[in-house]
Amino acid sequence: MVFWKKLFNNPDAVDTSKTTESGEEVLNLGSKDDSQPQIVFSTDRDLDYYELEELCDRVGWARRPLRKVKIAIEHSFLVVSMWEVKGKKRRLIGFSRATSDHAFNATIWDVVVDPKYQGQGLGKALMKYSISQLRSADISNITLFADPQVVKFYQRLGFIVDPEGIKGMFWYPD
Amino acid sequence: MVFWKKLFNNPDAVDTSKTTESGEEVLNLGSKDDSQPQIVFSTDRDLDYYELEELCDRVGWARRPLRKVKIAIEHSFLVVSMWEVKGKKRRLIGFSRATSDHAFNATIWDVVVDPKYQGQGLGKALMKYSISQLRSADISNITLFADPQVVKFYQRLGFIVDPEGIKGMFWYPD
Repeated sequence: MVFWKKLFNNPDAVDTSKTTESGEEVLNLGSKDDSQPQIVFSTDRDLDYYELEELCDRVGWARRPLRKVKIAIEHSFLVVSMWEVKGKKRRLIGFSRATSDHAFNATIWDVVVDPKYQGQGLGKALMKYSISQLRSADISNITLFADPQVVKFYQRLGFIVDPEGIKGMFWYPD
Repeated sequence: MVFWKKLFNNPDAVDTSKTTESGEEVLNLGSKDDSQPQIVFSTDRDLDYYELEELCDRVGWARRPLRKVKIAIEHSFLVVSMWEVKGKKRRLIGFSRATSDHAFNATIWDVVVDPKYQGQGLGKALMKYSISQLRSADISNITLFADPQVVKFYQRLGFIVDPEGIKGMFWYPD
């Protein structure tokens, strides 16, 4: 999973011609000027948990114990982080992760994009990158549980609600 | 997770007074006669994949490559098998497994009960056992994707469809 991609203007077009040793992928938002900020994806799970917590704070999520967040990240099959890179400065602007049995099923959790960076197709690019990583691992059944306000977002990415009447169900402790 | 339980008549009542080294749990279906068949649960993932395939055949599931089944079982957080034990003979009559991030979320997959043994509360007992295992691991968000014909079965176990409008969604390759 060590490669770079450039997406020129159209987030559907993926150019995987660039590969580095960093395990990261660059989303080039139309600019060919390398002095401009770049959007970079990484699957490195060695994250700063405080930086991740700040990102989740920005979208108003309830805080979770960092000890458990660390366990969850360690035991996720896929961890994707999205960064804005300006020169030597990097800022965490998006995140997603997936649990999986490594064979048939994956379930995507904790998809978040910094509100300041929303509305530019970055959520779409983050999900497309996450899906491509799962597909390259030969996972065919990719699932998630979508809050009502993001169902249409996932539908535009090709996710189907309740296919053949299959229902997502939740059990909570009393 | 090494303990025995006896459930006398009422599958909701759990008596964990019996513990052995076998890592198995006995479901006593009302009979106190030890010569009668017993229903035993195990979390041992060292299963005979051909026996599991036969069980899945009995409910008409499409066959899956055993190589991938093995990977999926190895990378499941929880694997539960249900056995009928008569003397020294054991027969696999039920199965379920769950993926998890080991911290927040678990998703239950591949719940199957031999049709010959359905209608006796064994599916309910299998699920209750699976839930209790996940709860004992401090997993609070237990999810699954239910086919239309088993939605009511899971609702009786306390699972909720689309809580707060959250929708289960699937992505399939083209």
